[in-house]
Amino acid sequence: MNSTDRLQPLRTALAEITDLATAQANLHWDYQVVMPPRGAALRAEELATLETIIHERATAPALGTLLDEAADNLNGADPESDDASLVRVSKRDYDKAVRVPGELRSEMARAGALGHEAWVEARKQKDWAIFQPHLANMLELKRRYVDCFPDVDDPYDALLDDYEPGMKTSEVARVFEQLKAELVPFVAAITAKGDVVDASCLHGAGAFPRERQEALIRRVLSRIGFDPAGWRLDVAVHPFATGLGSQDIRITTRYDESHLAGAFFGALHECGHGLYEAGSDPALERTPLRGGTSLGLHESQSRMWENLVGRGRPFAGWVLPQLQEAFPAKFGDLDADGLYRAVNRVERSLIRVESDEATYCLHVILRFELEQDMLAGKVDLDELPEIWNERMRDYLGIEVPDVAQGVLQDVHWSEGIIGYFPTYALGNVIAAQIWAAVRSEEPDLDDRFAHGEFGPLRDWLRDRLHRHGRKFLPAEMIERVAGRPLDVAPYISYLKGKFGPIYGLAADR
Amino acid sequence: MNSTDRLQPLRTALAEITDLATAQANLHWDYQVVMPPRGAALRAEELATLETIIHERATAPALGTLLDEAADNLNGADPESDDASLVRVSKRDYDKAVRVPGELRSEMARAGALGHEAWVEARKQKDWAIFQPHLANMLELKRRYVDCFPDVDDPYDALLDDYEPGMKTSEVARVFEQLKAELVPFVAAITAKGDVVDASCLHGAGAFPRERQEALIRRVLSRIGFDPAGWRLDVAVHPFATGLGSQDIRITTRYDESHLAGAFFGALHECGHGLYEAGSDPALERTPLRGGTSLGLHESQSRMWENLVGRGRPFAGWVLPQLQEAFPAKFGDLDADGLYRAVNRVERSLIRVESDEATYCLHVILRFELEQDMLAGKVDLDELPEIWNERMRDYLGIEVPDVAQGVLQDVHWSEGIIGYFPTYALGNVIAAQIWAAVRSEEPDLDDRFAHGEFGPLRDWLRDRLHRHGRKFLPAEMIERVAGRPLDVAPYISYLKGKFGPIYGLAADR
Repeated sequence: MNSTDRLQPLRTALAEITDLATAQANLHWDYQVVMPPRGAALRAEELATLETIIHERATAPALGTLLDEAADNLNGADPESDDASLVRVSKRDYDKAVRVPGELRSEMARAGALGHEAWVEARKQKDWAIFQPHLANMLELKRRYVDCFPDVDDPYDALLDDYEPGMKTSEVARVFEQLKAELVPFVAAITAKGDVVDASCLHGAGAFPRERQEALIRRVLSRIGFDPAGWRLDVAVHPFATGLGSQDIRITTRYDESHLAGAFFGALHECGHGLYEAGSDPALERTPLRGGTSLGLHESQSRMWENLVGRGRPFAGWVLPQLQEAFPAKFGDLDADGLYRAVNRVERSLIRVESDEATYCLHVILRFELEQDMLAGKVDLDELPEIWNERMRDYLGIEVPDVAQGVLQDVHWSEGIIGYFPTYALGNVIAAQIWAAVRSEEPDLDDRFAHGEFGPLRDWLRDRLHRHGRKFLPAEMIERVAGRPLDVAPYISYLKGKFGPIYGLAADR
Repeated sequence: MNSTDRLQPLRTALAEITDLATAQANLHWDYQVVMPPRGAALRAEELATLETIIHERATAPALGTLLDEAADNLNGADPESDDASLVRVSKRDYDKAVRVPGELRSEMARAGALGHEAWVEARKQKDWAIFQPHLANMLELKRRYVDCFPDVDDPYDALLDDYEPGMKTSEVARVFEQLKAELVPFVAAITAKGDVVDASCLHGAGAFPRERQEALIRRVLSRIGFDPAGWRLDVAVHPFATGLGSQDIRITTRYDESHLAGAFFGALHECGHGLYEAGSDPALERTPLRGGTSLGLHESQSRMWENLVGRGRPFAGWVLPQLQEAFPAKFGDLDADGLYRAVNRVERSLIRVESDEATYCLHVILRFELEQDMLAGKVDLDELPEIWNERMRDYLGIEVPDVAQGVLQDVHWSEGIIGYFPTYALGNVIAAQIWAAVRSEEPDLDDRFAHGEFGPLRDWLRDRLHRHGRKFLPAEMIERVAGRPLDVAPYISYLKGKFGPIYGLAADR
C-alpha cells in the first residue's frame, strides 16, 4: 500500500463533506438567483440542516482519527504534495472546527438572522437604535468565539483567521497604517484638482439597454475565460461568484440601464473570482483543497481583472470599438484616452461598494479600526455612528448625511461577519504585488491586452496561483507568486503611476 | 406532554431527511435546467453522496426506535390525524427501506448508470444487441430486489409498490384487460374513419415564435394557479415538475417553433403536477407526508389539466381568442369547434410520449405486460424487439420501423425503472373517476371554464386530494375523492363521449 492508498478512507470522508458543501453552495446560488421568493422560509431550514450535517462530519472524532492516521502514513511525503497538503490543511480546519461548541455556533447563527432583520429595518428607518442592541449581542458572542482560541496574540486574530488563515492583526495594522499615510494625502491632492475627469459617457437615462450590456459583457468575458460549457452568468441583487467544482463556475452581475460601469466592471470582477475557482488542479476536485486559499487572495484576482486589466489603458483601447458599436450615442465620439480617464474618475464617496480604486482602501481601513475597537470594548456603541462620521471626515473629507449611508451601509456586521473587511483591501495590495511580478516576467502583456489577448495573463495566474487551490496559506502563497511577503509598495506605486498623470499631480506625489 | 410533543424527536429526524431530499431534488432540477454541461460528473458524485446520507438516515436503527416509541405515544390519536399518519406512513417507508441491502442499492445505481449509457448508444446505432445484456443484468438485480420482499403475492408487486404503494399487480391487470378490450376496437373504429380531423392549425414551419408561446403559456397558467411568487417555468429537454416544498414549485416545458401543442399541453400537464405539489396542507411541510401519494394519483392531476380541462370544449372556447391574438395566421379563421377537434386528433403513432388520449393507454399496457414477462423470465430477450413490434401491430395496428422507435424508445428500462409505466395509464383512469365526481358536485364547471375560471376546480381538488399529501394510500385516496374504488368505466365513458362525436361513431361504440 502506498501512502495514497492509505489515505483513501480520509479522502472518502473529506469528499463527502466537500460534496455536501458544494450542495450547500448550490442552494445558496439558487436562493439568490432563481428561487421563487416564497421558497425562502423552507430554504433557510434546508441550509441549516446541511450546515448541521456538514459541521457534524467536519468535527466527528472519527475524522480526527483518520487525520492522525493519515499523518502517520505520509512516510515523509513532500510537504507540497497533494497528499501531505490534504492532511495538513484538513487537520488545520479540523482543529479549528472542534474548538467551537455547537451551541455557540447555533447562537451565532440565530443572532445573525435576527441581526440581519433588525439591520434591514434600521436602515429603512435610518435609526441606529434599532440595530445597536443586536450589534452589542453579536460582539458578546464574538468574544466568546475568540475565547475558544486562547493561543492567539490578539483577539481580532481569531476572527481574521476565518477569512485570511494565518494572517495576524499586527501585520494587517502595519500595512494599513502605511496605506493610510499615503492614501489620505493622495486622495486629498486628487480631489483638490476638482472635477477634471469627464465620465459622462458611462451615464445616461436608459442609454444602456440591458440586452446590449449583457451581449457586450458575454463577448468580453469569453475572451478572458468565460465558457458557457462550464460557466453561467446571471443576475443577482447582490452580485457574487461561486465555484461548484472547477467545471461549474457561476458569476452574477446586475444591470442599470442608465449606468454602464456597474454591470460591466462588476462582471469583470466576478469573472476574476471565477477564474480562481476554475483554475484549481483537477486532482484537487472533491477535496477541501479546491478553491481559493483566502478571501484576500480571491479578491486579488477579482480586483486584478476589474481594475488592473479592465481599467487599464491597453484594455480601453481594445474595448472601445465594441462600446462604440453597442452604444454609439455614448461612445461614438470618444477616444481611448477619454474612456481610460472616464473609468478612472476619483470621487470622495459615501458608499464603499461604489468607491473607486484610490479611495476604496480608506473605507476598509475605517471598518478594520472600528472592528478592533468594538471587539475590545473600547467603543461606546451609542457613539459609533458619530465616530464613523468623524473618520469619514478625516480619511475622505466627506460628510455623512445619515446612518443608512454611514455606519449601517454594509450587510456584514448585521450577520455577525466581523474580521472580513480587511480582506477587501488586502486584495488590492496583493493584486498589485502579483501584477508587478507577472509584468516583469511577461513584458508584452500590455500589447496582448491591446489585442484582446488575455490568455497569457490567465495562464500565468493559473500556473502560479490558481492551480494550488488551498494547499498553501496566504502568506506562503504571496511569497510564491510575488517573490516576497505582503508589501504595500507596489500598490502605492501603481496608484500614483496611474492617477498622478490622470489628475496632473507632480511626479513626487 | 401531549402526543405531538412526544413526537418531536421523530419529527426532527424526519424533517432533516426531508430537507436533504429537497436539496437533492433541487440539485436534480439544477442539473436538468441550468447547470453548465461540464458540471455533470461532479453533480453525479454530489447526488450519490446525498443519496447515501439520506439512505443512512432513512434506515438508521435509531429512526426505527423513534418510530416504535412514537407509535406507543399516539394514545389512540385519530388515524387520520397528522400525527398518526406521520407515524404510519413513515413506518411503512422505513420497513421497506431496511429490507434492501445497501450493496444491492449500489449495484442497481451502478447498473442504471451503465445501462443508460448503453441505451443512448444502442438508440443511436439502432442496435438492440448493445443494450440487451444491460437489461438482462438489470432484471437479475430486480429479481434480487423482489426477493427482499418475500411476502408479496406477485413478484411484480414489489416493483409496483415503489411507485403505487399498496397497489397489486392483479388489480392493475384486471383494469388493463378491461381497457384493452375496449380500446383496441375503439381505436380501430376511429382510425377506420380516416384522417377526418384537421389539426393543421397546430403546425407550421416557424409559425410559433418561442417568446409568444411562452407569453401565452404564462398567461394561461396564471389563471390556473401558476404564481411567480412561488413557481418557476423553465425549459428542459425532458420536461418535468418538481415541488421543493409547497411554496417553490418548478415546472418545465420545451418549445418547438413549428408545433404549438408540445409546449402548450406539456405546460398544462406539468402545471397539474405542480398544483398537487403546491396543495399539501402547510402543516405537512418538512415531513414525508408532503407531496403526492403516488405516481398514478400525480398523473391523474397532470392529465386532468392537460386533457380533461385543456383539451375540453369549454377551454377551447376560452383560449381561442388568445391563440388568435398570439398567432393570427394560424388561428384567425378558426372557430372553437375547429380548435377542439384539432387538439383531439387521434393517430396511430409509434411513440408513447407523443400519443393522444385514445391510444396512450395501449402503449402503456404493452409495456406492463412485457415487464411482467421479463421479470418472470418468460421472454427471450433476443426476441423482445420482435415481440414489441407484434403487439404494436395487434394493439395499435402500426408497423415499427426500427428499435429506436420501438423497444428502445423509453428511458425507463435503461435506468432500471421497472414497474413505473402502469402509473401513466392509471393516471388517466383515476383522472376520469375524479372528473366524474367533481362534475356531479360542481355542475357549472363547464361554464366556469368557458370564462377562464379554474379556481373552483383547483380548490375542489385541493380540498379533496392535494391537501392530504401522502397521508393516505392511493386506494384509500381514490375512494375518498371519487367515492368508489379504482374503476375503468368513467374513463371509457369519457373517451367514447368525446371521440365518438368527433369521429362520427355510432353511439353504441
